[in-house]
Amino acid sequence: MLQYDLAEQSPGGFVVACVQMEPRIGAARDNVARAIARIETAASNGASLIVLPELASSGYVFADRDEAFALADALPDGATAQTFNALARRLNVHIVTGIAERAGERLYNSALFTGPDGHIGVYRKLHLWDNEKRFFEPGDLGVPVFDTPLGRIGVAICYDAWFPETFRLAAMQGADLVCVPTNWVPMPSQPDDRPGMATTLTMAAAHSNGIAIACADRVGIERGQPFIGQSLIVGGDGWPLAGPASVDREEILYGVIDIHRTRSGRALNQHNHVLRDRRADVYDPMLGTGWPASRS
Amino acid sequence: MLQYDLAEQSPGGFVVACVQMEPRIGAARDNVARAIARIETAASNGASLIVLPELASSGYVFADRDEAFALADALPDGATAQTFNALARRLNVHIVTGIAERAGERLYNSALFTGPDGHIGVYRKLHLWDNEKRFFEPGDLGVPVFDTPLGRIGVAICYDAWFPETFRLAAMQGADLVCVPTNWVPMPSQPDDRPGMATTLTMAAAHSNGIAIACADRVGIERGQPFIGQSLIVGGDGWPLAGPASVDREEILYGVIDIHRTRSGRALNQHNHVLRDRRADVYDPMLGTGWPASRS
Repeated sequence: MLQYDLAEQSPGGFVVACVQMEPRIGAARDNVARAIARIETAASNGASLIVLPELASSGYVFADRDEAFALADALPDGATAQTFNALARRLNVHIVTGIAERAGERLYNSALFTGPDGHIGVYRKLHLWDNEKRFFEPGDLGVPVFDTPLGRIGVAICYDAWFPETFRLAAMQGADLVCVPTNWVPMPSQPDDRPGMATTLTMAAAHSNGIAIACADRVGIERGQPFIGQSLIVGGDGWPLAGPASVDREEILYGVIDIHRTRSGRALNQHNHVLRDRRADVYDPMLGTGWPASRS
Repeated sequence: MLQYDLAEQSPGGFVVACVQMEPRIGAARDNVARAIARIETAASNGASLIVLPELASSGYVFADRDEAFALADALPDGATAQTFNALARRLNVHIVTGIAERAGERLYNSALFTGPDGHIGVYRKLHLWDNEKRFFEPGDLGVPVFDTPLGRIGVAICYDAWFPETFRLAAMQGADLVCVPTNWVPMPSQPDDRPGMATTLTMAAAHSNGIAIACADRVGIERGQPFIGQSLIVGGDGWPLAGPASVDREEILYGVIDIHRTRSGRALNQHNHVLRDRRADVYDPMLGTGWPASRS
C-alpha cells in the first residue's frame, strides 16, 4: 500500500481514510483500542483525515436506554474524546468518529471531530433511524461546517444522507468535504446484485453539490442486526475515488481529496455552476411550508 | 411486447412509457409525425402516460435565437400543442412532451402536459443549461404538480434534475411521479464504463422522496452535439423499473407505476418516513440565505 505515491500524484490534495471495522456492543475499551490501531495504520499510510463508523466506541444495538447511557461519553471532555484528541495530536492527523454523547441526562448520536491542534467540533445526528428514537434526542446543532487547514469540512451520520438538505446546507456554507460515520443497514427492496442505495445517494449528493464525501461504515451482525459495509469515498464530481468496500470485511479505504479541483469542478462549463445555478427565487417561497398534512 | 400482462400484474398500477427518439433540428413537422407514431405504439402496448424528450418537436442545437423562435409554438393553443391535445383525446392517454414555447417575444424551454380531457398544464424549465441561456428565459411557473386521474404528477426538464430541490418541492406538494423530458449530454469526468450520472441522480431523487421518476431522453448527434440516451423509469424505492435504455437507439421503455405502493413505500419502517422525517425546523432557518458571495 503506497499511499504516499497517491498523495504525490495530486500535490494539492490530502489523503482521507475511511476505517471500515466491526465495533462490538458494550466493548468500549476494546473498540477504542482497535480503532486506535487502525488510525495508526491509516496515518502511517499517509492519511491526514481519518473517518470512523457511527457509534464506533459503543456499538449500535442497545438493549435499553440504560445500556446506551452507560456506554456514552461527554463531549468534548470525556475519556473517549480525550483519547482521540491525544491520538490526533500525536499522529498529526484529523479524526472524525461516531460516538454516543452524554450531555447531562440527554443522549445524542454524535460525531467528534478533532485534529492536531485539539478539539474542532461536535455534530449531533439530525435524522434518527428506527429504534435510535428510543435512546437519542434529535440533533440540535444544525449542519455545521468546520474551517480546518485541510479545507472546509462538514459531518453527517448515516440516515442524514437520505435527506438532500443535509449535503445542500453543508455545500451552501462552503463545505469541500463531508465526512459520514455510518452504520448502514439493509434497506427494503434492495436488490441482491447491486450496491446499497447509500452508494447512489452519496454519489448524487457529491455530484449535485460539487463536494467530496467520505463514508466509513461498520460490518458484522450485532444482536441480529446485520450491517452492510460498502464504505465509500466519492470525489466532487460524484464518482468513487475508493470503494464501495466489501460487505463484510474490516478494511481501510484511501482517497486523495484535491480541494482546489473540487471547488473549480463546480463550474460544469462557462455558463453553469452546480451551486450558483440554484433557483433560490423559486425554492425559498415554496420551502418552509412543511409537509402538507392533507397529503398521504 | 405484452405490456397488458405487465399492467395486470399490478392491478393498482398504470403503464408509463418513455419514448427515446431522435428529433432533428428544424424538421418540426417530421419530428411531430414520428412522435405521433411512437405514441400510438406505446398506447397500443397499454401505456396510459407517455413521456417524450425535451424539445421533441424543434430539436435542440439552435443556430441562433431567430431559429429557436421560428421553431417555437404557443402554449397551450399553438398548432403543435393542439396536435398533441387531439392525439391524447383520440388515444385516451396522457402525454408529456418537451416543446419550445413562444410567449409573445419570450421563449421558454417548456413541457406540455395533456390528457384525455384536454390540456392539463405547462412547465417551464427552471435551470437552463449552457447555450440555452442565449435563447430561453428561465422558467417562471415554479415546480407545479398536477392532479390527474392517474395520480399527482410533476414535470421537470433535464438539468432541473441536478437540483435536489426540484424533486423535493414536487414531493412536498404530494407528487407521486415526476416526468422528465430530457436531452442529456455527456458530462465532464464521466467514466466510459458506467451509466451517465443522470441515472444516479434520478435513482437518488426517487428514493429520497419516495416518488417514481420517468425520464425520456433523445439520441443522436446534432450539429456536433452528442446525446446519451439511457432513458430510465425508476420506482419510488429508487430502483429502475426499466432502463437505462441504449445510448444510441430509438426505443420505448415501459414501467408499471403503482401509486398506492409508491405512497406506502415512503414509510421505511414503523418509525421512519422519507418525507415526514425532514428536519424543517433545522433546514428552513438555514435556507433562504443564498450562496455566500465570499465563498468560491
